[in-house]
Amino acid sequence: MRPLFHPAPEDISLEGVLHALSDPVRVAIFSDIAGADCAQTCSAFATVGDREIPKSSLSQHFKVLREAGLIRSERQGVEMRNLSRCAEIEARFPGLLPAIMNAHAAQAAARA
Amino acid sequence: MRPLFHPAPEDISLEGVLHALSDPVRVAIFSDIAGADCAQTCSAFATVGDREIPKSSLSQHFKVLREAGLIRSERQGVEMRNLSRCAEIEARFPGLLPAIMNAHAAQAAARA
Repeated sequence: MRPLFHPAPEDISLEGVLHALSDPVRVAIFSDIAGADCAQTCSAFATVGDREIPKSSLSQHFKVLREAGLIRSERQGVEMRNLSRCAEIEARFPGLLPAIMNAHAAQAAARA
Repeated sequence: MRPLFHPAPEDISLEGVLHALSDPVRVAIFSDIAGADCAQTCSAFATVGDREIPKSSLSQHFKVLREAGLIRSERQGVEMRNLSRCAEIEARFPGLLPAIMNAHAAQAAARA
């Protein structure tokens, strides 16, 4: 099984973070992971909002989030557990993720 | 000449803003426009950092920024003048643009 790639904190780029979160499904997934107390498995995201997300798309979304440095994924048996890397990104880009998460919450509330 | 499309403030989406700013050239252009006291013409951006940007790519970058709601462009004779829409976006997504601009500045300083 191939090892999972996680960028070092100093290799996390602003452009990569913004690109990863510029997709409505990915920002919703990341928001849930960042807000959770514990690691989230991929299968917890079979639906995002009202939409069912096919498993192959989900894997791709998690890969983009992981390679942008937003989440850390760990294989546990047949499952993949995902944790946010908020603290590392906060150290690199202070205030960036809270501002994006606030904007996401405000937009989701306005659309509901 | 076709009218330029500018989204209404309520139609500006988080995903659109993040996508527009996820490109290194566009975030540099927007950072200059947002930091300028006066409207900037497109030709002011023939180089971004050390890179020369072809005119056709520049037009496309300005179009993406405009359609995401980040800038307002006005034709003046043969030139296009561009102003940021920071105040409108600040009202919609408080703190988002300052956080992105800070991150951009921090990253540019670290790379210099």
